[in-house]
Amino acid sequence: MKGYGMLKIGSTGWLEKDVPGCGPMDAIVEPIALAPCTSDIHTVWEGALGDRHDMILGHEAVGKVAEVGSLVKDFQKGDKVIVPAITPDWNSVEAQQGFSMHSGGMLSGWKFSNFKDGVFAEYFHVNDADGNLAKLPEGMDPAAACMLSDMVPTGFHGAELAEVAYGDDVCVIGIGPVGLMSVAGTALRGAARILAVGSRPKCVEVAREYGATDIINYKEGDIVEQVMELTCGKGVDKVIIAGGDGETFLDAVKMMKPGGRIGNVNYLGQGDFIKLPRVEWGSGMGHKTIAGGLMPGGRLRMEKLASLIHLGKLDTKKLVTRTFQGFDKIEEALMLMKEKPKELIKPVVLM
Amino acid sequence: MKGYGMLKIGSTGWLEKDVPGCGPMDAIVEPIALAPCTSDIHTVWEGALGDRHDMILGHEAVGKVAEVGSLVKDFQKGDKVIVPAITPDWNSVEAQQGFSMHSGGMLSGWKFSNFKDGVFAEYFHVNDADGNLAKLPEGMDPAAACMLSDMVPTGFHGAELAEVAYGDDVCVIGIGPVGLMSVAGTALRGAARILAVGSRPKCVEVAREYGATDIINYKEGDIVEQVMELTCGKGVDKVIIAGGDGETFLDAVKMMKPGGRIGNVNYLGQGDFIKLPRVEWGSGMGHKTIAGGLMPGGRLRMEKLASLIHLGKLDTKKLVTRTFQGFDKIEEALMLMKEKPKELIKPVVLM
Amino acid sequence: MKGYGMLKIGSTGWLEKDVPGCGPMDAIVEPIALAPCTSDIHTVWEGALGDRHDMILGHEAVGKVAEVGSLVKDFQKGDKVIVPAITPDWNSVEAQQGFSMHSGGMLSGWKFSNFKDGVFAEYFHVNDADGNLAKLPEGMDPAAACMLSDMVPTGFHGAELAEVAYGDDVCVIGIGPVGLMSVAGTALRGAARILAVGSRPKCVEVAREYGATDIINYKEGDIVEQVMELTCGKGVDKVIIAGGDGETFLDAVKMMKPGGRIGNVNYLGQGDFIKLPRVEWGSGMGHKTIAGGLMPGGRLRMEKLASLIHLGKLDTKKLVTRTFQGFDKIEEALMLMKEKPKELIKPVVLM
Amino acid sequence: MKGYGMLKIGSTGWLEKDVPGCGPMDAIVEPIALAPCTSDIHTVWEGALGDRHDMILGHEAVGKVAEVGSLVKDFQKGDKVIVPAITPDWNSVEAQQGFSMHSGGMLSGWKFSNFKDGVFAEYFHVNDADGNLAKLPEGMDPAAACMLSDMVPTGFHGAELAEVAYGDDVCVIGIGPVGLMSVAGTALRGAARILAVGSRPKCVEVAREYGATDIINYKEGDIVEQVMELTCGKGVDKVIIAGGDGETFLDAVKMMKPGGRIGNVNYLGQGDFIKLPRVEWGSGMGHKTIAGGLMPGGRLRMEKLASLIHLGKLDTKKLVTRTFQGFDKIEEALMLMKEKPKELIKPVVLM
Repeated sequence: MKGYGMLKIGSTGWLEKDVPGCGPMDAIVEPIALAPCTSDIHTVWEGALGDRHDMILGHEAVGKVAEVGSLVKDFQKGDKVIVPAITPDWNSVEAQQGFSMHSGGMLSGWKFSNFKDGVFAEYFHVNDADGNLAKLPEGMDPAAACMLSDMVPTGFHGAELAEVAYGDDVCVIGIGPVGLMSVAGTALRGAARILAVGSRPKCVEVAREYGATDIINYKEGDIVEQVMELTCGKGVDKVIIAGGDGETFLDAVKMMKPGGRIGNVNYLGQGDFIKLPRVEWGSGMGHKTIAGGLMPGGRLRMEKLASLIHLGKLDTKKLVTRTFQGFDKIEEALMLMKEKPKELIKPVVLM
Repeated sequence: MKGYGMLKIGSTGWLEKDVPGCGPMDAIVEPIALAPCTSDIHTVWEGALGDRHDMILGHEAVGKVAEVGSLVKDFQKGDKVIVPAITPDWNSVEAQQGFSMHSGGMLSGWKFSNFKDGVFAEYFHVNDADGNLAKLPEGMDPAAACMLSDMVPTGFHGAELAEVAYGDDVCVIGIGPVGLMSVAGTALRGAARILAVGSRPKCVEVAREYGATDIINYKEGDIVEQVMELTCGKGVDKVIIAGGDGETFLDAVKMMKPGGRIGNVNYLGQGDFIKLPRVEWGSGMGHKTIAGGLMPGGRLRMEKLASLIHLGKLDTKKLVTRTFQGFDKIEEALMLMKEKPKELIKPVVLM
Repeated sequence: MKGYGMLKIGSTGWLEKDVPGCGPMDAIVEPIALAPCTSDIHTVWEGALGDRHDMILGHEAVGKVAEVGSLVKDFQKGDKVIVPAITPDWNSVEAQQGFSMHSGGMLSGWKFSNFKDGVFAEYFHVNDADGNLAKLPEGMDPAAACMLSDMVPTGFHGAELAEVAYGDDVCVIGIGPVGLMSVAGTALRGAARILAVGSRPKCVEVAREYGATDIINYKEGDIVEQVMELTCGKGVDKVIIAGGDGETFLDAVKMMKPGGRIGNVNYLGQGDFIKLPRVEWGSGMGHKTIAGGLMPGGRLRMEKLASLIHLGKLDTKKLVTRTFQGFDKIEEALMLMKEKPKELIKPVVLM
Repeated sequence: MKGYGMLKIGSTGWLEKDVPGCGPMDAIVEPIALAPCTSDIHTVWEGALGDRHDMILGHEAVGKVAEVGSLVKDFQKGDKVIVPAITPDWNSVEAQQGFSMHSGGMLSGWKFSNFKDGVFAEYFHVNDADGNLAKLPEGMDPAAACMLSDMVPTGFHGAELAEVAYGDDVCVIGIGPVGLMSVAGTALRGAARILAVGSRPKCVEVAREYGATDIINYKEGDIVEQVMELTCGKGVDKVIIAGGDGETFLDAVKMMKPGGRIGNVNYLGQGDFIKLPRVEWGSGMGHKTIAGGLMPGGRLRMEKLASLIHLGKLDTKKLVTRTFQGFDKIEEALMLMKEKPKELIKPVVLM
């Protein structure tokens, strides 16, 4: 079969591989819709996961089940399914502790294009089909559904980590596709003011549609100062970090009230340290909690979030600013993600 | 009246001041037992709170009510009381949000020897007597009770912030009096293994009595390596920081499993930053939550913790390694705290 | 001054009383907008609080400050304010424990027309003005704001008690004004399917506007059967009870999945018992948690919820189906509430 | 192979069955230590689970692995293991939701002597060995370890459900072996006063050793009155129910402060309803939360709780008041459990 992958750090290309084998609990899936992710770019061109050779890329997919293992109960050949980016080993001690995304070790619930080939292939392997696949609801648009693999659960996890509550004022730093879903997730947890930090006009427009009440352009001055001015010097209740780097936490802590929480869903690919400002962190005493974590994956998460789209409570189509037709367009879509033109939020390839 | 205080940064001495006035909700208290705290040392000799002049020191006290305001309902002259270091404004929005210690602003629930004169005086002022005093239980030793002002609630808050649960393996970094109370509080939340980091023999001995199962001496090698070796490479579930500085968080993150929590109760008096190690923090994705906060004070907290001593579930007398008799011994006790001789845990001055 | 109140059980009328006195932390307020509540009806005609004589009714108000006590810092004469139905004693041990609505004893944070005269008067007394009043945001409609006293915080508390989370299927039993706010609050916590139980056409219409996805008419059959059918036999994740009686919990438990939570915000005025069905409650083992509680009141709660209206995230005007002009129309409004005509949700009296 | 089981309701006897087959993720285990449970008695003589024929009884065991499936990674033949009473399907949606004990349906994580043969056999089957077995720590007494299958996790779950916190006053109703573990678990979560309700002298003695500060004998008067008297009319913060029936909740609610929680771990085998008292439940408004649930099982839970015994933080040997030697003594042990003589807490059969 064909797949599109990373040949080595800095280089991608088409690969010819065997169709993966299917264990007794697993499924083999062929794609219906695929989306490249900024993580794919980091993996290839920044070597974020270290050196990998001839590894098929991709972890965002909607597909059709081609084969299931003998122990799989709830899925069968032909079922259309949503595939989460994170597919945990559910019986691991980490999952039993409530952190399935770290099953088998920190971040090890992330398997696609990390420990094994990803989804940019004619067929891909899903471990624990019953635990990790969700049926595509009847009539749901595959491109919209493809945002459920990673963008929605990651963005929403920012609002969960920040424990956004009724009437909170929340700053969302970064309004790429994940940040936009953090804005939507923040609105869907009952926040009052949502201050979104970004500058690209298309993202700003969509952020407002998802519930942002104020836009902060970091090109127009220090974002902490802008937040403090907009909140009359009080700062915000919570901060979600969906962009930036290890220094972004300095701003996040400074703009937040004591008792607040930072929810980080930004993958920090570079630098040795994350830094917190001592004085504004209350000299260690300010109850400004710093939380950050990989998205929860698996079947239930997909079912619950799919339900929000299905019932019209969340519209992920706004994210999909570009669609391609045909499996061979994956390369073009990935390169578009790499270039990141001004009007792009997220491209999807439909088979 | 007489009081012992900070004359300016780096200098202490006896002060003569008026007896403080008593507002309608307040109380004036005369001390029965007083204890100096490392914070007093930081305040004077490191200028941790900035420059202060002729400010009476001290925030740990058991006393006798000398006067109450007209709106005070539950206390009267002559009542023996435990006085918490933190005395919030309970109707503030911060307290309504669940963070009374930050009432009126970050850390502003801390009033004694910060915004007003402290307790090292013949009389001292307590705001909101009904909300902030607790009756000294009949028969309770004042020296033991004096540990309730700060040592117990601060140390125990470390275990609360870390959310220690049944069977957790926990590392407590620092076993001064606060760290020892973190060890005791960790044991009292059902931890399994408690790895205490320290070196002073007296503290090590008492740490074991409070429930530490392993002692890690930082003088004998890297503490992360020691923790990893003792836990067969798995690391601990939770970490409590009760000593060190902004760099201590590097170790804490490294020794902790994904899904863990760090509870910091160490006042970080110096340096610009707290640093987290990017890779071991899961590149922002490891669900290693960083929490840190000032102790919850007030009446209920004092009553609940006093109850543990009263019923024999917690023995704070082990902390009191030295007692002085007489108000004029405050100076000596404070200087002892400054010198911190090897066998000292905590001195108390009894009137 | 004039006030409208309960003369004795079963009887109401106009009363002439002295303007209440103002303690040092308190405020005296004159009404701008007032709303009667079903509780007022229960208080008078069912004697829900026991026998009361010549007590002014009412606990929902927006007003103007007429006088403040000497210790009040943040409010002054002339300020327009939102007044919560629940005005706790914030320094009580119950409030320190996180349950301010029970300050001084179970339900004792509820003072208006319970322990003292209510708000249906030319002037009324508010304890702890700094802790319990919130400024009316510039330009906010007083009738809409008047829903903040009780309807919004009570309805939303149902969703808080039920711990509604992203993608949950939730049944809201009862869609009077509180139930409608539970529907809105459920939607604002990210629920997927919201099944609202009710029958009155106006309420049904508004429930849909607030986010209900399915309407269940109890007149058309057993509501448990209807819920089970609509959810393909799975039941719902959470239930909010905003109507019915002690037997309603039988249905709520039966229609809910294990691991679910019931949030009750319905005042149960009659009967000796609340009943849970043993078998469907998993013989005590089903993790179907039963929570129920009085709304949290106070200043912060009002500020946060007002912010949702101010920013257009919540529209309470839909609740106000009838407005009256003039203080003397209180009687008419109360009687309307008693009759509860088909098209009524909530009447408001504007001065 | 031989097994001891339920022939039909009201009748037990020895059975001859085939050794169970081992699926790819499963294990076959032979017993080292077995304990009968009150549930076994209910199952047989009360028909609590409905009619069952020729079903091997028992769900408390320590054993030795005889065979493992091809996908099992962490266990092998000969390993000594602790077997939890509850062995969930970890990839089920219920487990993903955090309620593994209800995997596949309410209570369906309970498989032994419920949906399949129990552990009173020469060999028994364990589903998902990696997810549900824990290694017996080196040197741990099998009889003490056998209390980990059900008594410890169930008793401790009572304290978890009640959310016992530092300084809480807690009433534990029932001090059979589960109730005693609730007492121990309550002490290990930092409770202050622990009021244990019971009458049998041996249980009373052991309750005190586990941390009970007061004993309430229901034979000496109404337990609510006794609790209220001992707490000066205030009531307790939390209640754990480990005995009684559906009416016991009446007492539990009455003796508890607003804002409290009831944690039920008593299997309620009879009656149609659980009853809550309307007035003392605050007419639905008292924030007295009612939680009840089956113990969490699985590997991590066993490992964590075993660690407490291994490190000397919990001594389960006090529960084992009688030991038998030899597989054929199961019948005698079960009958002893049925008779429940005065001095019995828990019998264990060692092979």
